[in-house]
Amino acid sequence: MNIELPLITPLNNVELGELIQAELNNKTKPLGSLGQLESLAKQLGLILNSSNPILVQPQLVVFAGDHGLTAQGISAFPSDVTWQMVENFLAGGAAVSVLSRQHQLDLTIVDTGVAKEILPRKGLIIKKVAFGTADSSQTPAMQQSQCLQAIKNGQEIICGLPGNVLLLGEMGIGNTAAASLIMSRLLGIPIAKCTGAGTGLDNAGLQKKISVLLKVLQRHSQANSAIEVLCAFGGFEMATMVGAIIQAAAQRRVIVVDGFITSSAVLIAQALDPNVLQYCIFSHCSHEQAHAQLLNHLNVKPLLDLDLRLGEGSGAALAWPLLISACYLLNEMASFSSAQVSTKNIN
Amino acid sequence: MNIELPLITPLNNVELGELIQAELNNKTKPLGSLGQLESLAKQLGLILNSSNPILVQPQLVVFAGDHGLTAQGISAFPSDVTWQMVENFLAGGAAVSVLSRQHQLDLTIVDTGVAKEILPRKGLIIKKVAFGTADSSQTPAMQQSQCLQAIKNGQEIICGLPGNVLLLGEMGIGNTAAASLIMSRLLGIPIAKCTGAGTGLDNAGLQKKISVLLKVLQRHSQANSAIEVLCAFGGFEMATMVGAIIQAAAQRRVIVVDGFITSSAVLIAQALDPNVLQYCIFSHCSHEQAHAQLLNHLNVKPLLDLDLRLGEGSGAALAWPLLISACYLLNEMASFSSAQVSTKNIN
Repeated sequence: MNIELPLITPLNNVELGELIQAELNNKTKPLGSLGQLESLAKQLGLILNSSNPILVQPQLVVFAGDHGLTAQGISAFPSDVTWQMVENFLAGGAAVSVLSRQHQLDLTIVDTGVAKEILPRKGLIIKKVAFGTADSSQTPAMQQSQCLQAIKNGQEIICGLPGNVLLLGEMGIGNTAAASLIMSRLLGIPIAKCTGAGTGLDNAGLQKKISVLLKVLQRHSQANSAIEVLCAFGGFEMATMVGAIIQAAAQRRVIVVDGFITSSAVLIAQALDPNVLQYCIFSHCSHEQAHAQLLNHLNVKPLLDLDLRLGEGSGAALAWPLLISACYLLNEMASFSSAQVSTKNIN
Repeated sequence: MNIELPLITPLNNVELGELIQAELNNKTKPLGSLGQLESLAKQLGLILNSSNPILVQPQLVVFAGDHGLTAQGISAFPSDVTWQMVENFLAGGAAVSVLSRQHQLDLTIVDTGVAKEILPRKGLIIKKVAFGTADSSQTPAMQQSQCLQAIKNGQEIICGLPGNVLLLGEMGIGNTAAASLIMSRLLGIPIAKCTGAGTGLDNAGLQKKISVLLKVLQRHSQANSAIEVLCAFGGFEMATMVGAIIQAAAQRRVIVVDGFITSSAVLIAQALDPNVLQYCIFSHCSHEQAHAQLLNHLNVKPLLDLDLRLGEGSGAALAWPLLISACYLLNEMASFSSAQVSTKNIN
């Protein structure tokens, strides 16, 4: 493997962390009473290296790609839905389009490997490695050269985008299967525990999916390193996302993770550089059963738990106002002394 | 008891519910994949009697009042903090001030019974029943005439406010104790299970609070109806809120409930008219331990669970963008046919 990745600074500025904590403690509220928003404010401050963090020009990027494994009938929807949804994103009719408008997030769609030609237009970046991955039940989903190209593409995309926040989204029929395979192999968890209904399989469909995935895992029993696992099972949207995540962290951008598939990309990125995790905010816990387990493994608490299982970055967009709130509360709330409010009298 | 309350229409328009569900099912997403946002969209549609609900001029109202029971040392902060925080709300430095600015919520503070004169100004409504309630360890917290006056005040306040959404907030040192008493008596749950650390008691403080509250409950063993319970234990901010909740529901406004104290006001309102609950959106589950139990009793699932325990309406304000999202998704997402996206092929 020949891959050069940018350095990611560990967030170990103890002094800044203490300064932010002291500011939070002096705000006109009982100590710790803003709960998870306080740790969020602190994390945002550390990432942006400021006790008054300001989120600028947030970029929601939806990475889209197709999966050869869908030939084995592991998804409730046909592969054509990938390009059709890309069209829907660009036309403004998808959930993530609506939510991006609501929250004034810049929305960019990346064709990383959709199985159909997508015509160039505003809001679309074309970084197509191939017309879909290969069928991982037969061969690795991608060649190593393709994988490295996709990672490089992801890095380039981030370098071309403004702002200090990246919100992750994805689209790719079959990609919950790919995420399950990655999770199972990297964490050593049996595939049945990593597999869910995706876009809506019934129980028979789910059992079939599990048996297909079991064979795919056996087919690639030698794939163990992060890159090998990504090549064997991954999608181009995932590999491109891995590059984007690492580049964003290296540039000290805040990374807002969406659901199960974007979390599996974080899992790969983390295997390449553990520091990446400190830059990630986990927006929600998906209804897809394996996601809770994956978040648990990463030892992170997501902001929302609304039984979402849509992907696209919809969960990241829904959680976005909470990040703004965390910054505003840190930056704008009065302190006990400035507002002349009495402090605790008994304990 | 002599109290005339407006009628609340039960939300039983089955046809409209089915129409909204059908619209949600036809959106370009896997069936049900927007999880809790879908039931939220449906509830908002039913409340506003429209398959395309639009939220207009949301009003965040913070009901403030003082509690005589604080003389028994049941709160970590002195009573003066109530008026000091009212000043802080009006000056724009409190958490709810910051969040209201972020989300363009009209913020109104109501002096329902603060133990100090609050000077009139913009954003303040003065409906002071008395300078704080009586000490409920000695007498009922309020006379029935005071309670009914406060309820009437709450109704009048709502009639004077525009828009179709009421977000509930409160401020009152000692009011978690009052909420615990109300919950314990109305639900028949032992007081220890209804009592938490409030603004930040340590374990000794909590044990003392429980023993005080136990005596208060015994002192008012005859208080059983909703109004009797409210008179015995409640605060003016709670009684005023009860009137506001009932009036808002009668006018088919969406009611966004905040934490433990506003939920206890809903408990009273629900005892007066069970239909009120259909108009309530529960914004979050508080860190105050009894709140989860209370929500469970009401059989409702809150939107957020961020370990908040601040009150003021801060949780309601934080959840607010999710209500907008639910409406926008219902109103703006494309359908499978309009976007020409393929539907499910296998199951």
